[in-house]
Amino acid sequence: MIYLDHNATTAILPEVLEAMMPYFTSEWGNPSSSYKFGSKLKSVIAIAREHVAELIGAHPLEIIFTSCATESNNSAIHAALRAHPARRHIVTSAVEHSSVLNYCMALETEGYSVTYLPVDRDGLLKLADVEEAITDETAVVSLMWANNETGVLFPVKHIGEICRSRGIPYHCDAVQAAGKVPIDVKGFPVDYLALTGHKIHAPKGIGALYVRRKALMSPFVYGGHQERSLRGGTENVPLIVGLGKGAELARKHLPDYEKTVRPLRDTFEEDILTSIPNAELNGDKEQRLSNTTSLTFHGIESEALLILLDHEGVCASSGSACLADSDDPSHVIKAMKPEGLAARQSIRFSLSRETTELDVRSAATAVTNSVAQLRLGLSAACVN
Amino acid sequence: MIYLDHNATTAILPEVLEAMMPYFTSEWGNPSSSYKFGSKLKSVIAIAREHVAELIGAHPLEIIFTSCATESNNSAIHAALRAHPARRHIVTSAVEHSSVLNYCMALETEGYSVTYLPVDRDGLLKLADVEEAITDETAVVSLMWANNETGVLFPVKHIGEICRSRGIPYHCDAVQAAGKVPIDVKGFPVDYLALTGHKIHAPKGIGALYVRRKALMSPFVYGGHQERSLRGGTENVPLIVGLGKGAELARKHLPDYEKTVRPLRDTFEEDILTSIPNAELNGDKEQRLSNTTSLTFHGIESEALLILLDHEGVCASSGSACLADSDDPSHVIKAMKPEGLAARQSIRFSLSRETTELDVRSAATAVTNSVAQLRLGLSAACVN
Repeated sequence: MIYLDHNATTAILPEVLEAMMPYFTSEWGNPSSSYKFGSKLKSVIAIAREHVAELIGAHPLEIIFTSCATESNNSAIHAALRAHPARRHIVTSAVEHSSVLNYCMALETEGYSVTYLPVDRDGLLKLADVEEAITDETAVVSLMWANNETGVLFPVKHIGEICRSRGIPYHCDAVQAAGKVPIDVKGFPVDYLALTGHKIHAPKGIGALYVRRKALMSPFVYGGHQERSLRGGTENVPLIVGLGKGAELARKHLPDYEKTVRPLRDTFEEDILTSIPNAELNGDKEQRLSNTTSLTFHGIESEALLILLDHEGVCASSGSACLADSDDPSHVIKAMKPEGLAARQSIRFSLSRETTELDVRSAATAVTNSVAQLRLGLSAACVN
Repeated sequence: MIYLDHNATTAILPEVLEAMMPYFTSEWGNPSSSYKFGSKLKSVIAIAREHVAELIGAHPLEIIFTSCATESNNSAIHAALRAHPARRHIVTSAVEHSSVLNYCMALETEGYSVTYLPVDRDGLLKLADVEEAITDETAVVSLMWANNETGVLFPVKHIGEICRSRGIPYHCDAVQAAGKVPIDVKGFPVDYLALTGHKIHAPKGIGALYVRRKALMSPFVYGGHQERSLRGGTENVPLIVGLGKGAELARKHLPDYEKTVRPLRDTFEEDILTSIPNAELNGDKEQRLSNTTSLTFHGIESEALLILLDHEGVCASSGSACLADSDDPSHVIKAMKPEGLAARQSIRFSLSRETTELDVRSAATAVTNSVAQLRLGLSAACVN
């Protein structure tokens, strides 16, 4: 198997699993208990919180553990809206993850108005559009760090500065950026920032939300006193430990993304773009994550290509895994290239620091052969 | 260690962990992917869903996986409110879990009115109170199956019938009941029912919400198409598998709670009540879970007693673990016995099918000795 879908999910590292295991076996107490068997787990959670904080330059008290990035994104927007109940406007973009977009759409049915900022053909956002979209009614700006389908990077520092100058909270979905680009929340004005375990070789089912110390926070999931009463529910100790270990290792291995992953991705991209006619890169060539490439193969239905690739042992996707079950074309590519069929003819390949040169060479060959096979089939069908 | 705090959390059974492990190691794909390495996990989730459904007599399509019972409880109430946006009244009780109570209190700040039904000195609910509380404005009735502190059972069948006759959705927090008493959602009118993994020897961080097929459901966590678009977020495959296995085993071992756990609990209770003066049972003797006993030791601060018990290796709690960090007295005991200090002088002991006779005999001795020691200390202090 050649797994080139790391933006969908990643394998849990052996060190991460090893760190988690004691909390599934012998240390299964409830951290909120008064007896030592439970309460000693508080320090374990504290260590994990430090590691997550360190990955993004935050203070541990600014980290709230959640069940996933989707919850983190929902929680941040929810908190900002509750902080300013009179403001009924949200600014986001047309290419956000479904956990932002679908929540915003639900909020529209509750009377909120939402501005979905456009992107250009390269997936880039115009800062002037952000400036212009913000009104006196705006409660929150939610704009992602790196796009999950194209890897395109938004100018988060400048977005944060605009928001700060206008007194509007800024939430950043950094799920795909965390562990791949350096993040330092002290370095720019961001109020909420979401990340998740299973994109950084830690488990699924655990996420985190950074909340700047002076940003207003209210719970999204209401329950007991866990997470300083900001997120109810018994602490998921083993998965919190897993996220902590994953964050620690992600920080350690962060340079690999520029040093080894980017060259591999570029090799892969070049191999394909030189060997396959009518193939096109989606997303700005420079302002992009080092691990992601989204390619349109004109005339080829992405679903057909994915089936052939699967047969060849290559795992890739036609867009976000979160929406893979639907027949909808990619909303990201559609926002970039609304005319034509690119949204139905694009494939995302995403590498990790575990990807090898053999992986990308073999995958490029498989893609080249599969595209050729499909085009041959199409032209044969035309002759018939 | 003698662990008598199973209402706080339980150990993961070896079979449950074994079932989960492949999904942490080799089978780590994203189930929403189109390639087999990911998509084959859909059937794994389907099997877990069947086991959870079977535990409560539901159809698998009526089960939504969540991150915990707190989220399940929030989600059910949220869905009922969205189903009838014009209705702004909620009926619940004063002794619900914090995931219901704190969510209701938050909703009060959003303009909802909430009736918190009282209970009597034995923790019992009057059906006439339920009848009376429901108005034309009521959007949902949320009343638990079994109390987490006292084990007292609410008449859920009759509550459901009242709700049905009045056309009001009924949500039941069955977190402590699941796996301890037979639950058959086909047998009575309930629209939403919450349960969780870590109370039935499955992992923390995974819960489920039953939603009757005709009940209206809308997402609480908005994201991708997971859980038929009713709960966003990448499926937590290993923990879903763990919950499925836990539910399967809970169903198999359900009779143990009457056959072996109840006699042990009764032995423990009798040992203590006969050997310790001024000790008192909280909660109705009959209408009660087989595994729980809440006892007031008059004149003894529960926190002091818990420290001595911890020293003796006995794990118990002064109330819900979710609120153990707070200095507040138990809201459950306070609702039952508002006068006096019982809410600060009560301890919950909760057994499981793993508890042995040696456990309860030794624990009863430890409790007896610790109470005697504290009372001696108190009378010495008085003499001084």
